[in-house]
Formats: sequence, C-alpha cells, structure tokens
Amino acid sequence: VKAGLETFFRSRWVDRPRELMELDAGALPAGFRAAGAACGIKPSSRPDVAVLCCDEDECTSAALFTRNAVVAAPVEVSRAAELTRLRGVAVNSGIANVGDGAHGVEVAHAMAASAAAALGVDVARIAVASTGVIGVGLDRDTVVAGIEQAAGGLAREGGVSFAEAIMSTDRWPKHATVEVPLARGGVRLSAQAKGAGMISPSFATMLCFVETDAAVDAITLGRLLRAGVERSFERVSVDGQLSTNDSVFCFASGSSGIGVRPGSEDEVAFATALDALLRQLALEMVADGEGATRVARLVVRGRVGAVDPAARAVANSPLVKCALHGADPNWGRILAAAGQAVPDARPGSIDLSVEGIAVARGGTAVALSEEERRRIEEAMAQPEVDLHLDLSGGDDEAEIFFCDLGPEYVRINSEYTT
Amino acid sequence: VKAGLETFFRSRWVDRPRELMELDAGALPAGFRAAGAACGIKPSSRPDVAVLCCDEDECTSAALFTRNAVVAAPVEVSRAAELTRLRGVAVNSGIANVGDGAHGVEVAHAMAASAAAALGVDVARIAVASTGVIGVGLDRDTVVAGIEQAAGGLAREGGVSFAEAIMSTDRWPKHATVEVPLARGGVRLSAQAKGAGMISPSFATMLCFVETDAAVDAITLGRLLRAGVERSFERVSVDGQLSTNDSVFCFASGSSGIGVRPGSEDEVAFATALDALLRQLALEMVADGEGATRVARLVVRGRVGAVDPAARAVANSPLVKCALHGADPNWGRILAAAGQAVPDARPGSIDLSVEGIAVARGGTAVALSEEERRRIEEAMAQPEVDLHLDLSGGDDEAEIFFCDLGPEYVRINSEYTT
Repeated sequence: VKAGLETFFRSRWVDRPRELMELDAGALPAGFRAAGAACGIKPSSRPDVAVLCCDEDECTSAALFTRNAVVAAPVEVSRAAELTRLRGVAVNSGIANVGDGAHGVEVAHAMAASAAAALGVDVARIAVASTGVIGVGLDRDTVVAGIEQAAGGLAREGGVSFAEAIMSTDRWPKHATVEVPLARGGVRLSAQAKGAGMISPSFATMLCFVETDAAVDAITLGRLLRAGVERSFERVSVDGQLSTNDSVFCFASGSSGIGVRPGSEDEVAFATALDALLRQLALEMVADGEGATRVARLVVRGRVGAVDPAARAVANSPLVKCALHGADPNWGRILAAAGQAVPDARPGSIDLSVEGIAVARGGTAVALSEEERRRIEEAMAQPEVDLHLDLSGGDDEAEIFFCDLGPEYVRINSEYTT
Repeated sequence: VKAGLETFFRSRWVDRPRELMELDAGALPAGFRAAGAACGIKPSSRPDVAVLCCDEDECTSAALFTRNAVVAAPVEVSRAAELTRLRGVAVNSGIANVGDGAHGVEVAHAMAASAAAALGVDVARIAVASTGVIGVGLDRDTVVAGIEQAAGGLAREGGVSFAEAIMSTDRWPKHATVEVPLARGGVRLSAQAKGAGMISPSFATMLCFVETDAAVDAITLGRLLRAGVERSFERVSVDGQLSTNDSVFCFASGSSGIGVRPGSEDEVAFATALDALLRQLALEMVADGEGATRVARLVVRGRVGAVDPAARAVANSPLVKCALHGADPNWGRILAAAGQAVPDARPGSIDLSVEGIAVARGGTAVALSEEERRRIEEAMAQPEVDLHLDLSGGDDEAEIFFCDLGPEYVRINSEYTT
C-alpha cells in the first residue's frame, strides 16, 4: 500500500469498500504478467500493442462482448475462443480492425497465434481485442512483431504499461489494483480499461481487463462479471453509440490459493470490490468521454419498464448534453426527453431535483429562492452533477451516468481523415 | 404565376408535380386571411405573434400533435378544440409556454379566446400554438394584445407575414402557394412552417399550417394530412428530439367550389401536391436545422421491422452526423449505428453506397478507384448527400432525411440563459 496516494475511488457515486487496500496499480495479482510495446501502428509512435497472460494452467476466465450486430474481427475471433479458460489476451490500439473482411479476420487470428506461440499455450486459450481507426487495414506483420516484442517484456509489474498501450484518445490511463481481505487471507484484483475516444474517425470503444489471484470457478466468475458490468459499463453513455469492439475480460489465476465460493460471505466481499472497481472505471470512461468536461448522474424513479428508457433518453439527448456543457439546469429538456421515451408518462406528476433541490414539481417550474438558484448554479459548474427524476407511478429505479456534449466532441469526430 | 421565380421545390428528393403552378407564397387560397405582428415577446422586437383564419363557416380542418407525453399548454388547449372544424389559429413565437402549470394553460386559453372574439367565432373553433424559450412564463396581456393587433391586420396576402412571425431561430421563412389543376378547375394550397432552432435554451419545435380552397370533408382531409406528414415531417430528424410543441394544422375553406372526393383522380392530384409541399417544407426544416450545413437522405432496404429502426439510428447517431459535418464518407459509423439498432442484422451481407457508388459490400470496404474516391469526396461536400444501405433479408424500405452535427449546434444549445 502506498501511503499518501490519492484514492482511485474518486467519484462520490462509488462506495469504496472500507476493508479494501489500494496497491500500486502496476503490480498485477499473483499468476499474471503483462506488457505494452510500440510497434508503429499509431503514427505518434506511442505504445500500441499489449499482451496479458496468466501463468496458471488451471485459471478460469469470463468475457463479455458488444451487442452490436456489426462486430470487429477480434470480437469474432475471441467469441470462438475457450472463453471460460483463457490464458491470455493480445490487444492493439491505433486501428480497430473493423470491416476488413477475410483479411481482418486473418490478422486477428495471427495476433492470437503469435501470442499463443510466445506464451506456449493453445491458441484457443488466447483472446484478442482492438481499438482505433476504422476502415484502415491492420498490417499483419507489424502487429505480430509488436505482440512478440510485448510478450518478451511480460512482467508482474506490467499493469501500467499494459493500460497505457491500450489507450486511444483517452486523456489518462485507467487502472487500479486492490487487495480484498477474505476469511482465509487477502486476494488481489487488478483492472485496466480504456474508454470513449479514439483516433478520428472512430467508434467510442470500451475495453476492460480484470485479473485476480483468487480461485473462482468459471461459472461464478462469469456471473460476478455480468452483474458488475450491469452496474457499471451498462450504466454509462458518452454518446449513445454501441461500439463494434467493446470487450470485457476477467481472469482468475487462483495463485493466492484462496477460493471464492458461490453463496459465501467471501463472495459478497469479492463481488463488492469488483463492483467498486468496475464502477469507478466506468465513471473514468464517462469523465474522459470525447470532449467531456463534466459527468452527470441521473436517477429515474417510476414504474417498472419506464425508468430505464427514460434514463437512457435523457442521457443520450443532445439537447440535455449541450445544456450540461453550458452548466445550464435546463429541466425542461430533461422532462421532454423523458416524455419522448415514455409516451404514457403523466407530465403533471413529474418531479425533478438538482443536487437535492427541487426545480420542477408536477411538471411545473418551482419558484426558487435566490439562495437555491445560486446553489444550483454552483452545482452545475462542478465536475459531477447529481439529478433525480421522479416520474411517479412506481418505485423502480434506474441510474445512468453521462457526460456533456461540447464543441470538442464535434471537432474530434468531424475531422476528415484520408 | 411569377415567371422567372426559382422553384420552391428545390430538393432533388421532391418530385414536383408537372401540372403544379407556383404562385406568390404570400397569397393565400380563397377564404383565408392571415397576419403577423410584433408584440414584444421576442427581445429582438421581431414579429412574434400571428393569426390565421378561415372566413367560411363550413370549413373543415385536421390537426396532428407531438407524441411526447410532456406537452406545451397550447397543445393541451388545442387538443380539446373542435379539430375537424377549426376556423383559425393563434400562434406566438419567442416563448414556448411549456412547464408553466395552470398559468400556462390560462394564457393559452386567453390566446384562443382573444382570437375568437376578434374573428367573431366560437372559441372551440380556434387552435393555438407556441414556440420559443421554455421555463419562462408567457405574459397574458402581452400576447393577447399582439393577437388583437394581428387580427386587425388580417389579409388574403398575409401568408408571408404569418410565416415570418412564427419563426424562432429559423434562418429563413418557409412558405409556398401552389395551384393544382383538378377536373373542374384549379384549387390552391398554401403552407407555412417553422423548423428546428429557437432562442436558447429551446426544443426543436416544428409547426406547420396548410390552407386550401378546395372542399374536402374532414375525414378525407385528416387522412390526406396524416399520409402526407408520414412521408415528410415523420421522415426527418435534426437531433432525434421530439418537441413538446410540434403541431400541424390543415384547413379547407371550400371557397373554390371545387370538391375533392375520396377515391377520385382529383384526390390523387390533390394528395400529390400536398405531399410535395409537405416534403419540401420538411427538407427545409432539416436544411435549416440548428447549425446544419448539409442534408443527407438515407434509404435503408431490408426486412420489415428492421429498416425503420436502422434508418433512425443512423440519422440520430452523433458520430454519423459529425462525419457528415466533416464531409467524411465514414461508412463504418453507418454500419455500426445500423448494427446497434438491428441486433439480428448479418454484417456479412450489408451493402452501402454513396451517390450510387458502392463503398462497402458484404460489410467490407470496397477498393475504390481514384475516380470513385474523387467523386465521393465531391459528393460529400455538396448540400445534399444520397446514401443507400442494404441490410439484405427483405425488400422493405425506409427513407430518412437528416442534417449534420456541427459546433454551431453545440453553441446554440449550450449557451446559458438566466
């Protein structure tokens, strides 16, 4: 534990488990090695290829991929791998390897094969992931040479190097390592992620890799990962666009000798730590969204079936996002976006509050005091803004995190590349 | 007919009926009078209130309103009016009259009442509409005085004055008058509309008013209006946001003495002219979308149930819209947006063309010749860009028109107003 380090769990919307110890982000849990390298895919010469491996043959894994019908070649190749017993993953940034037909699939296969050869494991136990420019072919020899180079530099302390090599237009790397005390001792969890923003033109791909030295059976690992993703990456939106490359991988080496059994208290502690990690990473992605200057959390309350569409409609409304950019508590746009998504909403019973201060009651503007107006103005200018929308008609709740829409998003995404 | 006038039907995507004669846009069909006035709602002192009336007691009408659950007070009041026999409408721009509770409804009622009194007709036969800033109360005395002033200036030639007074941040007024030759003589059709863009902060409200001197029963008029709106205003998107104020009104005075009977050839000619009018007006709205510099038409072909969601997902994708702004034929973003909306799409059989030149076949980039590349580059920089997406799996088609997303949209919609 590095004393004096700022906590990774910076957002007020993430409950940092009290027992958690934060460790050096670069140090992976026992049984894992990683490395990043630069092989020339990115014109900037920054790191653009990375390998992560688990040295335990008995390790378990779980993976989740984009729901988009149009998927990148690496997603196609990874889906066909042995996803419950993966031994490693080879990743490149700079080029997304989408829409390149049979050639793209061949290159993704070659990435897996070269990592498998370097690690001495069956190719079926290697996954691949890519992020970056689309519509550009990924050169096979370049990326294979890069993977070989990265595989040659694999180290237990390679977490930061790995996290930096998977970045695209991310403004900062996203990684953490924590230790979770369980009944029989501590287990460690590391995670590296990259978020929304890439070399233009691009998709807003998210990739996340999680490693633990706990022993967790593949079914439990898959269940915990799905639940954690549901409460983190599934609750954020930069621009409402589902990438063709989104992938989340979780590996359990078992190297600590400490097992996490389904239904145990240890499982609760482990899941809580995993949740906090994924949730903070998801918030980092929103905060680092293309051109983003602030993040809003919106909690919608109402009937089952209405709250989630309303939350997503507000989070993806360009009018709401522009208002957030302008630090403008434009509640009318929030009500209108919700009303578009939930045609049976009763506007006369919709309430909205900003940082706990009611701004609309029964669909009508609240007459604010000078003090309230000042507090809302201040709150809207902060990096995190909290909004609560009550549609009435039920007690179900949906939460969503989204960033603002500023001119920088347009600049990043409208630049012409040839 | 003004010889030498440029045609109103400027878009290549609108078939101008050959027999149609274009008349002075300001001259309304027989039986109608209109006027705009400035009453001080807009800080700019521009015209901000307008009245349209039909002088025939036997006139028929039809109306369509936003599907948003959250509606403006004027929509609430208009919905309760006698929508098949309206005699007129009172409109204001500058303030949208949304979210002002009982006061807003009272003001909307007062608008109808003052127009009814000035015209000497039952208040139940007067509709109202508003567009402009939200979250600001509309002063009753101001708007009522404006309506009285406008009603005092009503004239057969008031079409342009009316169209100008309903503008918000529209860069140009949208209006036309045409004559359609029917079997027993010509009937006239006028229309005035306003589109996306308003004093910030705002919704992207669209309003449209259509007048004809043909005699059309209310059921037929409603059917023709719904069909025309389905092929025009329902097929456009500026930012995917459904306004709380959207309203379309159609009035038939019967003053020409020429009837349009259901099932007749005259009905086809009349409907064709109405369609062309509404379609061009809808395209004007997209072209005049907030910050817009160009319009794209996307035709999606595929199985029933897939084409419309795919078309709307592409049209509302901020990534696609930014690429359009940058004149970038970024076909990967179009495929990704369609794949997000249609999870069972088979990417390996998706084709995309730009101006008839294939850029992707079977989900894979086509190797373009220098000549093709140059032609696409030129086409993307034009004010109108034509895109065809074939998802395969069926022969259903959906068409949508959308504008680009530029920094000006963000500027307009993120400015803080107090």
